[in-house]
This record gives sequence, structure tokens and C-alpha cells, in this order.
Amino acid sequence: MTKQEITENIKRKRSFLCIGLDTDIQKIPPHLQQEEDPVFAFNKAIIDATAPYCVAYKPNLAFYESLGVKGMIAFEKTVAYIRRQFPDQFIIADAKRGDIGNTSELYARSFFEHAKVDAVTVAPYMGEDSVKPFLAYGGWVILLALTSNQGAQDFQLTEDAKGVRLFEKVLLKSQEWASDEQMMYVVGATQGKMFLEIRKHVPHHFLLVPGVGAQGGSLEEVCRYGMNEQCGLLVNSSRAIIYAEKTETFADTACREAQKIQEEMKRYLQYINLK
Amino acid sequence: MTKQEITENIKRKRSFLCIGLDTDIQKIPPHLQQEEDPVFAFNKAIIDATAPYCVAYKPNLAFYESLGVKGMIAFEKTVAYIRRQFPDQFIIADAKRGDIGNTSELYARSFFEHAKVDAVTVAPYMGEDSVKPFLAYGGWVILLALTSNQGAQDFQLTEDAKGVRLFEKVLLKSQEWASDEQMMYVVGATQGKMFLEIRKHVPHHFLLVPGVGAQGGSLEEVCRYGMNEQCGLLVNSSRAIIYAEKTETFADTACREAQKIQEEMKRYLQYINLK
Repeated sequence: MTKQEITENIKRKRSFLCIGLDTDIQKIPPHLQQEEDPVFAFNKAIIDATAPYCVAYKPNLAFYESLGVKGMIAFEKTVAYIRRQFPDQFIIADAKRGDIGNTSELYARSFFEHAKVDAVTVAPYMGEDSVKPFLAYGGWVILLALTSNQGAQDFQLTEDAKGVRLFEKVLLKSQEWASDEQMMYVVGATQGKMFLEIRKHVPHHFLLVPGVGAQGGSLEEVCRYGMNEQCGLLVNSSRAIIYAEKTETFADTACREAQKIQEEMKRYLQYINLK
Repeated sequence: MTKQEITENIKRKRSFLCIGLDTDIQKIPPHLQQEEDPVFAFNKAIIDATAPYCVAYKPNLAFYESLGVKGMIAFEKTVAYIRRQFPDQFIIADAKRGDIGNTSELYARSFFEHAKVDAVTVAPYMGEDSVKPFLAYGGWVILLALTSNQGAQDFQLTEDAKGVRLFEKVLLKSQEWASDEQMMYVVGATQGKMFLEIRKHVPHHFLLVPGVGAQGGSLEEVCRYGMNEQCGLLVNSSRAIIYAEKTETFADTACREAQKIQEEMKRYLQYINLK
């Protein structure tokens, strides 16, 4: 999916919501536990109920891998289901991978050829040759820049001798590897005004923004400081939507929660003039 | 497995060789392709042939994930096989994971509870709360410090205002999270004299050293600059051993290659007095 297509979807749906499919088998409604594949059954119901209100889905691989082989089957079925039923959705494998060249090449093959996602989140620590194999497949790389967690402070904010912080160096250096047509950055919703700093370096890139909701980030603040003239944001919500309710009507409630966020997003989108 | 037990195994076997099970289905001998699970059949033969000469095995997850569900089955079978047949082997899941706390917790559960490995490689970019959940399981964390690839130069060598490089900051900061009884560091064999710098910060820790062989690192140099009084090294070789030959006698050849490295290691171990 091209940058232009993502922007068109945002314009059409008046939403830049990404729903995180962080499906924990211990948290899904009890009645689904009888299904042959409870995780997929849950995801399918969530997707069917929320698709009108979002433009992207982001399964986090940790949740699937923690179930071993069964989990990976559920992951692959989920991606295939979205691809088939909702081809306008942007699918992000939140995997935070990154290894030496020949190994990253295999991860890239897994996600882009095998699972057929649109984007993979990648950790920058190992540098250029750990990132480039993902780009070679023509898919999107979403590089970790400034994350939403407490630990972001440990290394990401370290200033070099010239006062350039590590996350800024990641933003600057990685622009030598790919343009805004193939690279996005992860910036946590908890970072508030830091979005202004981010936008100095990447005014035109899409940012994938986790951390609204359970992690405490504010959508209003993210939009105020992080939105660009083309929106340029994919804001993720996981737990606040998918676990909003745990009875048989969980999907209806998830639908209402997604719609609520979408309505808020619609208001913020009025301040820009999407082409 | 404790640090003391690893050291005892090194002493007993006169080897600090870790064999990387980077099993690429496209590179294994043709006759194995008829097996029900060619990847496991290959691994089993390699393990049976090389176990006397090494103290650790390191399957890299990328190779298994790239095969989808089948690959994950082969991974789990491989770990279970080593655990059962060769309980003195240290098993490292080379996964380079790292995510926000609740997500790292799931990765930790996958590797330590489900697959039952001894150690997981972890990327430090997201800081403390991305690493600690792995420690909570009581397993080993092997944190990326200074990797063997070209891209190591992009961020890992960046100096802060006080001249401390990022990999040094990782070494220093992470010692607040765990001791040398639960943490090791990845340092590439291609880093030569940089081992001296590393040892200033972590004189007693084990270092996991990839990059000997196909990547061009020298075992002699790693030992000269990186060995401590307890050895403190696990040197990994993958391709040079497991793909040394691709006919029906591949396991015999892998055995000879592993033995060759072990003999070289034995010589270097004579220079220290292992307790």
C-alpha cells in the first residue's frame, strides 16, 4: 500500500486509527475458549466489528508466539482474513526485529512473502544492514525512534557531542536508507511535545503512535504536536478497544470504543485540508 | 544453568564453542528434503555429531520463523531434543527481542516457559522495562552490545557528550538490572581490539561472540583481547560448521569442523587457569 493510498483511506474514513491485535488468550471472553482457535475467533469478531472505524491493524507477534505453533497459526489466519475481507486495511506486523543482513533477510521473507503484511516494525540498534533487507521486499519499515515506555529514557535520549539525541540520529541516518514512501517511525503517544522535535526531522513521514489509552498518552496532544498537513499519523489503540468488555457482546463494545476514537479523530482532521 | 556450571562445562570439554543452528532449508543436503521435518532431521544429525565439541547451541529464530508454522515446530523439537539428550548444553534462542514491558513479558514466557531455553538475545534500544521481564523468569539475557555487522557503526559507536559510546552505555546501564550471573553481552568477533574496551566495563561477564568464520572474525584475536580468567567467552560458529559439506556425510564433516575449532580453543584455554 502506498503512502498516498493510506492517506486516501484516512480521508475517506475520517480516521487514522490503528487497532492493535494484542490478543492474549487469558483475556478473551470465556465463551470463545470453546472455539477451535479462540485467538482467531476473537480477532475475526473484533475485525468485523471495528473495520469501518480504522485504517490499520497491528498484531503484535509476542502475543502469538507466546502460544507457540498454535499462536502462529492464529496470526497467519488473522492476516489472511484481513487481507481477503478488508483489503483497504494496512497490516503491520509489530515484531521489532533486526539482525545481521542475511538474518534480517529471513525475517523480511517471513513477514512480507509468507504472512504478506504491509509493514514490519524494526529495531534500529544494529544499523543499516539490519534494516535494508526489509526494504528490499518493497514493504514498509516502521523503525523504532522514540518509544512510549519508561525505558525510552535509558538510551534513546542520549545526546552525542553535538547535542543530537539517539532517536534524532536514528531519524536522520535512516533517511539515507529509504524515503517517506517506504519508511515510518514509531513515536510513543506519551512523548507529548517531543513530537515537535520529531517533526523537525521528519515533517512528511507517517508516524506510528502507540501508547494512547492504557499507556496514558493523549490523542489530542499527539494531534496538536504530531499531525502534519497530510495527517501523517497512525495512532494505535489496543487494550482500550479489544478488551473494553469481556462478555458475549465484546465485539459490539469494541465497535463502540473504536467509533468513539474515530469521532475524536474526525474532529482533529477538520483542522487540516487533506488532499 | 548457572555461570559456574557453564564454566565447568568449558573446563571439562576444553571448549567454549557455541554452534549456531541457522538452519536454512534451502541449504541442507538434498537427501534430507524427503524427511517429514527436514529442518529437525538436519539439526538432530548436526547435534548428535557435534555435541562432544561444544557447550552451547544457538538456534536463530529468523530461520525457523521464515518457514512459518512448520519452522516453529522444528524449533521446538530441536530445543526439546537438546534438552533431553544433552542436558549439559546451554541453549540460546537468538531472537533479538525487546518491546514494552507487558509485551516483553510474553516473549519471555514463549522462550523460557514454552520452549524452555536457557537464554534469549535481547535488543537494548527500548531500555530497562523491555529487558527486565526476561530476567524475571530467572533465565539469561544476552544483550546486544557491539555487534559483528557493518551497521554496528551507525549507532553503537556514537559518543555522548562525555565520550561514552552507546555500546558502553548499554554495558554500564544494564549492570544496574542484573549481575553477571544472569546477563551476558553480544560482542562481534569482528571487533578485534575493541574487546579490550569491552572488558574494562564487564571484566567478569560472559560474552557471546558471533562472527567467527563466514563473517571474518578471528578466534585467536577474540581470545587474546576478550578472554578473562574464567574464559568468559562463548564463541559462535554457524555456517562454517553446519554447511561445511552438503552430501550424505554432512554430519561427519560438521563433526570434524567443530573438533578443529575445539582443538584451537583448547590451546587458548591453556593460557588461563580455570577453577
